[in-house]
Amino acid sequence: MLPYDSLIIVDKENQLPVYKQITNRLIGLIQKGMIPPGTFFPGTRQMAELITVNRKTIINAYEELLTEDWIESVDRKGYRVIPQLPVIKPRSFQPPSHFSPPSSTAFISSEGLVLQCPPQPEHRDTKSSDIVVNDGFPDPELAPFKEISKIYRDKGISSRIKQLMCLRDEGGLPLLKDAASLFLNETRGLNIKKNDIVITRGAQMAIYITAMLLLSKDDHVVVTEPNYCFANDIFEHAGAHINKIGVDDEGPDINQLEELLKRVPVKVLYIVPHHHHPTTVTMSAMRRQKLLKLIEQYGFYVIEDDYDYDFYYKNSPILPLASAPHHGKIIYIGSFSKLLAPSIRVGYLIAAPDIVKRAIVLKRLIDLRGDTFIEYMLAQMIITGDLTRHINKSNKLYAQRCDFICNLLTQKLSHAIEFTKPLGGMAIWLKFKSGFSINRILSNASHAGLCMIGMSFSKPGDPNDNGIRFGFASLTEEEMIKAVDILVKITS
Amino acid sequence: MLPYDSLIIVDKENQLPVYKQITNRLIGLIQKGMIPPGTFFPGTRQMAELITVNRKTIINAYEELLTEDWIESVDRKGYRVIPQLPVIKPRSFQPPSHFSPPSSTAFISSEGLVLQCPPQPEHRDTKSSDIVVNDGFPDPELAPFKEISKIYRDKGISSRIKQLMCLRDEGGLPLLKDAASLFLNETRGLNIKKNDIVITRGAQMAIYITAMLLLSKDDHVVVTEPNYCFANDIFEHAGAHINKIGVDDEGPDINQLEELLKRVPVKVLYIVPHHHHPTTVTMSAMRRQKLLKLIEQYGFYVIEDDYDYDFYYKNSPILPLASAPHHGKIIYIGSFSKLLAPSIRVGYLIAAPDIVKRAIVLKRLIDLRGDTFIEYMLAQMIITGDLTRHINKSNKLYAQRCDFICNLLTQKLSHAIEFTKPLGGMAIWLKFKSGFSINRILSNASHAGLCMIGMSFSKPGDPNDNGIRFGFASLTEEEMIKAVDILVKITS
Repeated sequence: MLPYDSLIIVDKENQLPVYKQITNRLIGLIQKGMIPPGTFFPGTRQMAELITVNRKTIINAYEELLTEDWIESVDRKGYRVIPQLPVIKPRSFQPPSHFSPPSSTAFISSEGLVLQCPPQPEHRDTKSSDIVVNDGFPDPELAPFKEISKIYRDKGISSRIKQLMCLRDEGGLPLLKDAASLFLNETRGLNIKKNDIVITRGAQMAIYITAMLLLSKDDHVVVTEPNYCFANDIFEHAGAHINKIGVDDEGPDINQLEELLKRVPVKVLYIVPHHHHPTTVTMSAMRRQKLLKLIEQYGFYVIEDDYDYDFYYKNSPILPLASAPHHGKIIYIGSFSKLLAPSIRVGYLIAAPDIVKRAIVLKRLIDLRGDTFIEYMLAQMIITGDLTRHINKSNKLYAQRCDFICNLLTQKLSHAIEFTKPLGGMAIWLKFKSGFSINRILSNASHAGLCMIGMSFSKPGDPNDNGIRFGFASLTEEEMIKAVDILVKITS
Repeated sequence: MLPYDSLIIVDKENQLPVYKQITNRLIGLIQKGMIPPGTFFPGTRQMAELITVNRKTIINAYEELLTEDWIESVDRKGYRVIPQLPVIKPRSFQPPSHFSPPSSTAFISSEGLVLQCPPQPEHRDTKSSDIVVNDGFPDPELAPFKEISKIYRDKGISSRIKQLMCLRDEGGLPLLKDAASLFLNETRGLNIKKNDIVITRGAQMAIYITAMLLLSKDDHVVVTEPNYCFANDIFEHAGAHINKIGVDDEGPDINQLEELLKRVPVKVLYIVPHHHHPTTVTMSAMRRQKLLKLIEQYGFYVIEDDYDYDFYYKNSPILPLASAPHHGKIIYIGSFSKLLAPSIRVGYLIAAPDIVKRAIVLKRLIDLRGDTFIEYMLAQMIITGDLTRHINKSNKLYAQRCDFICNLLTQKLSHAIEFTKPLGGMAIWLKFKSGFSINRILSNASHAGLCMIGMSFSKPGDPNDNGIRFGFASLTEEEMIKAVDILVKITS
């Protein structure tokens, strides 16, 4: 008989019921061939004594194994592992150290890509006592998980999913494309129909697809500096030349763009006119008008990333560039992820018919189809108005948190930082005054129990470029107080 | 006063409660500016009369609007739209017809891509009375939606998600990478750790990422004919030359591969050794051995797509090529989607460290992070053993369905088809005898209420290449009988 007492260790602290632990362990031993097909198990009484558990527990475990066809009952002899059971003998997988690196000539190079993004704080397992300040995520505590769970429990859901999955994915569920178009028309003054939109996994995939469709090697793309760095990484991956323009209090510097356009055949401009990333600045009306003129004059494409549109606290949000005439040159990109829960990733791109057509094909290559259930659920939430209500409720809370953190920062940290209170969004762009190195602050904060994982930028010698995104939307007032106290301590 | 009676139409058949319908409609009118800021609403009694509903319904609707800050109550005057409310005036979006097509020089061309896949039946809205036979999906009726819903309802879920999302995505949740490695080691005789695996959205994204990393323009890739056509599309998108080898009863023709290797500098072989797609043939042991030798001799990469491994009915599954020594040349790709529900897309790739490292970076460019919740849930299901139990239960049912449909086909359709009973998987490769055009059959079946959306292949003049994948796993016995009856009718 096998030494079951040493093979089966029961952990009574474990969440899993003891009988399930035993079942799983026995299955593991059978699968590994350690209990070969045809082997008889000890009787329930004997097994119970061997591993010192209640006999009832063993009975339950054996019953589970019976139901799952791992063992069978033999008259008067007890239980044995099914004799015909196929055995899988694990062989040794090539150990990683023997692998030889592939000699790819593709554009991507892990070094180039990693360096493109400014150094971020180490990604370590945070202690549960640590306060984590993110880049500007919504608060998962507000996420409508209950509503989602309700739809999963709906009796008809399986057959509805079955029906919806009969169709090939044409850039998202038609139901969602329809509902999303209505929602976007109402909130953003667009005028689109379901065939103008492609549903993606988050805004990131929308940027990736657009870049792959528009850019070829050595094409010129323009971005701001600083910029949402994962967009830069995509353009670099596409083999494009990256040209940079500045950002000030009125947003991206359109005069610099004009100078560039005179010299360089710009193919694509990537821009975040509303709540610029990372600085949260909103582009002034004058610059928007000028940009629209330049588009007409030079005919380049614009990727308008509007990740944060639905979150505004005092003022009415500014309509996207895409709501003005642009001769099909703007690709408008946004996300529903922030509206629901950061874990649920649904984004979209809106573009001219030819781009949409090719985006659907490329998306299918990358990701055969989206998560049908999530897309169905989101469509339901839009149709019933639950999404709008959820946004309104979130906005109220986030506005309070924004007021709270801004007051706190002004009162306690003015010696070290500068910032402009954002009109919306979920993050503050904290600029540290000269003399305060952002990297040292991040490291000291981390040791003091404050982990700041927002995007940070520092350019040697440029005091204007020494900042970090401080996401406040998912912090309680208590957490904000603690976070600011730590910052005060390490900057005094 | 606005003509509320014509603006607000109540649909009593609608699932949505009437007061919610009214709320949503009023919000829509406010948002569109049709009810301007500051406007007073009719009193509840008057409004109730105007749109002929109960007064209590109007009270509920107004209360909802109050809670959401759309309206405010003014002493003795009633309710009015918040005067400071920001109004968004929809402007006209550039109509699609004015868009000019982009002049991209990127590889992707929608025509090429669409043509690469053999013509599929039209994707139309199926009538609910239609029987839909898919390419081989699991049955959503078996999907563990209840278990998923339970995890969504878990009280601690929000804070757990919040914590998990603090980390940058390094190719999937560490918890899932750990659990998946154990699961794959136990079932497939691999010997991997969490750092050898990258979690993706379905197997499709794993193929896409691998192809982008390994292939450059004009590289040579080898596939079978017929093949999983979306893989071919990816290789074409990468700009590679596609070379084809045949498939017979023993799987892909390795002699043809050897001949090719002598002539052409093959960079990558894409292969489905287990339950080949579309033909469901399993590669013989002799050919596997020969393939492993060729890998060693010529040093090309192999993308081993093992989408269907966990579903086997009679025989023990054959271990993947990746479980044998291969000097890091095999990239092993699989999927959890079929194990759970077709709507939930989680796949993976396992490869040499250098490929894994670059795959993580590229995946982040394409899709910043996965669905944290789904990844967490899947990890839980592996750890508790729920996944294995779910697979065992599904396998039992699918085996019955496989027996049932094969008997039926043999009895009733032998005049028109040939097939080999599959050893596992969820589809049968139905070959139609000469004289039966697959395209005509699909079209006739569709008119008779049978929509077959599995991948179909027909090569003019080649009677061996006139087949379709017939997914049986999600069909009830009743549906199978009906489907076969229709096929009998249109082939007699």
